[in-house]
Amino acid sequence: MEKPLILVTNDDGITAPGLRALIRFMSEIGEVVVVAPDSPQSGMGHAITVDNTLYTSKDDVKSPDGALVEYSCSGTPADCVKLALQELLDRKPDICISGINHGSNASINVIYSGTMSAAIEAGIEGLPAIGFSLCDYSWNADFEFARDAIISIVTEALQHKMPKGIVLNVNIPKTGPDVPKGIKICRQARANWKEKFDKRTNPRGKEYYWLTGEFELLDKGEDTDEWALANGYISVVPTQFDLTAHHAIQELNSWNL
Amino acid sequence: MEKPLILVTNDDGITAPGLRALIRFMSEIGEVVVVAPDSPQSGMGHAITVDNTLYTSKDDVKSPDGALVEYSCSGTPADCVKLALQELLDRKPDICISGINHGSNASINVIYSGTMSAAIEAGIEGLPAIGFSLCDYSWNADFEFARDAIISIVTEALQHKMPKGIVLNVNIPKTGPDVPKGIKICRQARANWKEKFDKRTNPRGKEYYWLTGEFELLDKGEDTDEWALANGYISVVPTQFDLTAHHAIQELNSWNL
Repeated sequence: MEKPLILVTNDDGITAPGLRALIRFMSEIGEVVVVAPDSPQSGMGHAITVDNTLYTSKDDVKSPDGALVEYSCSGTPADCVKLALQELLDRKPDICISGINHGSNASINVIYSGTMSAAIEAGIEGLPAIGFSLCDYSWNADFEFARDAIISIVTEALQHKMPKGIVLNVNIPKTGPDVPKGIKICRQARANWKEKFDKRTNPRGKEYYWLTGEFELLDKGEDTDEWALANGYISVVPTQFDLTAHHAIQELNSWNL
Repeated sequence: MEKPLILVTNDDGITAPGLRALIRFMSEIGEVVVVAPDSPQSGMGHAITVDNTLYTSKDDVKSPDGALVEYSCSGTPADCVKLALQELLDRKPDICISGINHGSNASINVIYSGTMSAAIEAGIEGLPAIGFSLCDYSWNADFEFARDAIISIVTEALQHKMPKGIVLNVNIPKTGPDVPKGIKICRQARANWKEKFDKRTNPRGKEYYWLTGEFELLDKGEDTDEWALANGYISVVPTQFDLTAHHAIQELNSWNL
């Protein structure tokens, strides 16, 4: 059987250790092409570049991690996927894998996530797609312990048909004894961020803010991604880009519009 | 009864005619505070500013359109809502209204929309929220014909409790004879963009791209937002930020993970 063609991207940029690890893992099971941002794009959500130019740069050196070819791109993660599929690749990939993100994209973080926006963009374009994130923000985090689980999830996704209109949001707990304990299919936990703005004054006397915040879990369910991660499991949430709240349509039809 | 406090924002920037019209309409039914980007933020999706500073500027001149106060902000639409709720406003608004966007945010466009990301951010923070978009990209589009419908939708949203975890994505057809014909509660149509990248060479000889594309409707349903708009109706889609595809959980549990 021909090896699957795997498009790898991320939002932390082409030099990120999480991406380099993912390229190595994916090269074990397929032919890998990389199109990733040339600089960090965390928090970009599903941004696309509409009013600015996009540059790409092809790496002519053989990829040290085993990819067939690597491109960096001046745009967002969603731009990378669009460029890959329409312009840069000779044939359609069999799957798009985004990550491994340095930091959690569980729960409400999926909304702000550049990693997941790349996967969702691929899903919109009809490709099976998975975003992987590690709940460890450090640049030198251990990714190797997650190798077997990541390969297993991608292999299963290639073998089964991905449910229509769905991409997978996979989060991996930080390494530790007996971690990961296993893989759980979950729902997205209800949560939000309690923002705090750090207000400062710049050298010219003008006030500015830094966005900071604390994660606030609002969900005690044991079927959520946050529960799975807190208990040492890898969480897999089937994530959709049809945002319609079908259950609310009837209620809205009772409004006097 | 005390007048409701209405937070108004958008993604086209604080000078956009669509925002100015929305401020006027909302001033008829409530007290309006504005926190909007200082420059256009179209296509920003749910981006937030994590690695950069945020500046705000308070307009000391009385708002010509009737707002109590107007702030412009250097960040994204989601940043504007976070700053408004945590830093800038004295009391919690009763509702957040985003728009009126110059251009459609129906169907899959909701994913890329800065207008809707502001509404979704407000929803995540527990506020009723609505995004309004007009299917006319021109800067001098007619917004006045939509006044009655917009006021009616916001008034109903203030009177009823918004269903939990839901914001409204409202799209308005371009003005014309017998438009709007009415208001329809809809689901998000299945669609995508067929990208075309316009490849050019800059004055220094380096190749670059412009993202362009054609909208491709993949849905023949008559209960969709695209159907409503094509037939002269205003579309209202209840939109959720729990992205879990609950129906796919069982199928994924059959995978060998």
